[in-house]
Amino acid sequence: MSDTTPEPTTVTVIGLGNLGHVLARTFLDQGHKVTVWNRSPGKADELVARGATLAATPADAIAASDLVVICVLDYTTVRDLLTPAVGTLAGRVVVNVTSGIPDAARELGTWITGHGAAYVDGAVYAIPQTIGSPEAFVLYSGDEDAFGRYRTLLETLGRVEFVGSDAGLAAVYDVALLSGMYGMFAGFFQTVAVGGSAGIDAVPVTALLVRWLKEAIAALPGFAAEIDAGDYRTETSNMDINAVGLAHILTATRAQGVGVDLLAPLQTLFEQQVSEGHGAESLSRTIESLR
Amino acid sequence: MSDTTPEPTTVTVIGLGNLGHVLARTFLDQGHKVTVWNRSPGKADELVARGATLAATPADAIAASDLVVICVLDYTTVRDLLTPAVGTLAGRVVVNVTSGIPDAARELGTWITGHGAAYVDGAVYAIPQTIGSPEAFVLYSGDEDAFGRYRTLLETLGRVEFVGSDAGLAAVYDVALLSGMYGMFAGFFQTVAVGGSAGIDAVPVTALLVRWLKEAIAALPGFAAEIDAGDYRTETSNMDINAVGLAHILTATRAQGVGVDLLAPLQTLFEQQVSEGHGAESLSRTIESLR
Repeated sequence: MSDTTPEPTTVTVIGLGNLGHVLARTFLDQGHKVTVWNRSPGKADELVARGATLAATPADAIAASDLVVICVLDYTTVRDLLTPAVGTLAGRVVVNVTSGIPDAARELGTWITGHGAAYVDGAVYAIPQTIGSPEAFVLYSGDEDAFGRYRTLLETLGRVEFVGSDAGLAAVYDVALLSGMYGMFAGFFQTVAVGGSAGIDAVPVTALLVRWLKEAIAALPGFAAEIDAGDYRTETSNMDINAVGLAHILTATRAQGVGVDLLAPLQTLFEQQVSEGHGAESLSRTIESLR
Repeated sequence: MSDTTPEPTTVTVIGLGNLGHVLARTFLDQGHKVTVWNRSPGKADELVARGATLAATPADAIAASDLVVICVLDYTTVRDLLTPAVGTLAGRVVVNVTSGIPDAARELGTWITGHGAAYVDGAVYAIPQTIGSPEAFVLYSGDEDAFGRYRTLLETLGRVEFVGSDAGLAAVYDVALLSGMYGMFAGFFQTVAVGGSAGIDAVPVTALLVRWLKEAIAALPGFAAEIDAGDYRTETSNMDINAVGLAHILTATRAQGVGVDLLAPLQTLFEQQVSEGHGAESLSRTIESLR
């Protein structure tokens, strides 16, 4: 591998699940020489038909390319795959977009670096359909030099952002952003359950929810600015209003025969802020009960 | 009041909080003859300067217009205001956009109808800045004929949707949609807390969250269609993947020293679906554990 090559001609993709498959196809579409490996080799058929080379083992796959992109179930699987192939790692760049937790990313990074490869950890924010489109984005952390060398290539997958040299940082963002997504999903299920209790189908109430969430999302950057400034003065949405509002919602939800387990913990935080005397301050102050 | 008048020239707004104030101003801007009342009359100063008439009592305010829009703190306040003014109600249309629960809306509707007025209940989805813009929308339920008579006027506040003749239905939607919003807010706080535990400020992680949520929201209509069809077959995001994924997130969150109370109840639903043998079915099947 030459440090001066601005863009590789060889890339290996290990793991051909929904995401890995699309990553490999996107690289192929961009004209790169792509080698793939998957535990079930049949998953590679379409890619091979498009010009990819199917490697017999992870070691063969790694040996074929300067850049190795890994996208498997979890970090344990990454380690299991790489252990018998460890002799092939030296001099390569491993970009691991497997979902995982920060400590696992840091440990894997240390282990891979110890075998002479550069380690970059990535977290992909895209559904397979949007990979390669401007809606997709991938956060990277770890070896910034190695990332920089392949930045142009990686930008073919979606917008990129390098978030720091701590290999675990992309995973921290991943945990943070997926937590936000799961919160939204919890809200969605609650919406559908309440609607359903009154005979409203999921599709129409979800259409309205989508419309409303797109507007409500616009409030989040303002809340974030208040949190960073530690300045919770507000003229609009204070803790009192929200504590009363959410209490009404929970009461009404129970009256409809729907459980409130998903939202009751948020009400506990609201009430804690109010009982501590912060009722007139911004809703964003809820964060103070979480940290 | 004439049933044949397509649009009123007189409208009363009772309650001049953030939302009521903007409602009154929007009616004024549209050239209507607006009468207002608020417990603290000073809140009306700007509106009076723009041409509104300040009524001395709720009864005077109601007597001044065919259409009476009420926007106060809660339904108890509505009843307290209207009780001494009850003799003025006959023949008018009361549109109540106060936030509340379905049973309270139904009871108020019955009471107002009993005094000879038509009752329409509304739930407003807008921040004050967007009232009168295409982003704002208001759901109405109750007396469909009365709603239809004032539909054109009400459309000046935002897009309208009539959701049914049960006066409580707008409030059911309100509870449902606000539940969804609070779920998203819970996720936001979790995002900021996890980011903060790694030294990441709220503003940058929120910028990424907003980007990601806008993409993730696109999954909701598909989930809703699966729920209505009761067909949970999926090739993509199944219960197993999400149960493992969220478990990792909760573990990583705890490892960062952040509490998981807001998301743990969702994981309980995921695990229930998996333990009941639905691991290969869609994430949308979570709803089955909520109803």
